[in-house]
Amino acid sequence: MTGIFIVLEGIDGSGKSTMCSLVAEALGSLGRRAVATCEPTGGPVGSLIRAGAAGASPAAEALLFAADRAIHSREIRGLLDGGSDVVCDRYVASSVAYQSSAPGEGAPDAGWIMEINRPGAIAPDATFLLDLDPEVGMGRIGARGERSRFEDAEYLRRVRAAYLGMAAEDPSVAVLDASRPKRELLGEIMERIRGII
Amino acid sequence: MTGIFIVLEGIDGSGKSTMCSLVAEALGSLGRRAVATCEPTGGPVGSLIRAGAAGASPAAEALLFAADRAIHSREIRGLLDGGSDVVCDRYVASSVAYQSSAPGEGAPDAGWIMEINRPGAIAPDATFLLDLDPEVGMGRIGARGERSRFEDAEYLRRVRAAYLGMAAEDPSVAVLDASRPKRELLGEIMERIRGII
Repeated sequence: MTGIFIVLEGIDGSGKSTMCSLVAEALGSLGRRAVATCEPTGGPVGSLIRAGAAGASPAAEALLFAADRAIHSREIRGLLDGGSDVVCDRYVASSVAYQSSAPGEGAPDAGWIMEINRPGAIAPDATFLLDLDPEVGMGRIGARGERSRFEDAEYLRRVRAAYLGMAAEDPSVAVLDASRPKRELLGEIMERIRGII
Repeated sequence: MTGIFIVLEGIDGSGKSTMCSLVAEALGSLGRRAVATCEPTGGPVGSLIRAGAAGASPAAEALLFAADRAIHSREIRGLLDGGSDVVCDRYVASSVAYQSSAPGEGAPDAGWIMEINRPGAIAPDATFLLDLDPEVGMGRIGARGERSRFEDAEYLRRVRAAYLGMAAEDPSVAVLDASRPKRELLGEIMERIRGII
């Protein structure tokens, strides 16, 4: 039996990475094997993205994310085929939402970003959009002592709108209020996951 | 006045890199500023390609080449706008010819490769295809004491056919017999370049 592929999406500070670990743990407690992973990955291409190799080229950045994802998707496919569930912090929707909303000139359009991500992309069994007001997300990042990658909330507002636009067109995406306590959010996610396993 | 953008294409062993330097020198001797460059570049993404970061994913490799090129194209655009000529060893056509011809499963199709290379790509003022029999190219590589990246000439035959197919559809591509002596080939290239400067 192949595993299920769960994707968590949302703006910075929406709590995706913590929730990824919690969901993988909860799947484990149901007697399933589950792996939590994230994008960009810790592999060579993901590391290059974090190091800012794309410089001032938004197209290069989108291509690097797609390359990192193409490699990652092969690994994910292997895990799923081996029977493990995979819970992934960010996937194709992140690229569409962030890169098409990038400030300045030369932001690639959403259609092109979907196209460059086409080969090897795996359709998630469920996508959870942890929806949050950007001001709250930035406040959470600040409270952790991290510096936000963004000067103000304007960019994240566009990213949020892009996410909500995608969710409105895709019934496999569940939009969840991420301002609630973690355990409550986890409960809702697991209830929905139990409906598909 | 902006510089001119010259691209040299061809299979491994066709003599492109030597010819790039010779063409840049010849442009210099005409009183022009000219820069010879190549792809994959020596930058971080190009280095990752050479290190084999794409692993077994032909799509990831194509995306990395396109990312490297997007960054390179910005640099080339800057040089051209600054009045320098740029002579480039491989450009978009290399990706189309090599990656769509890759052996094994999962080779991306030519249309997708063109699409991922669309943003920022610069239309060359002239492209010279140094056409050569793959057996001769592999013999030259062997004679330099280098190991060919290819087990046999079959892949390079497909690459050559892809190149010739593109040239047949694009009148800005000049197909030149690369088995001739270097100076003779350089003479023909410079005669054509003088026609456009």
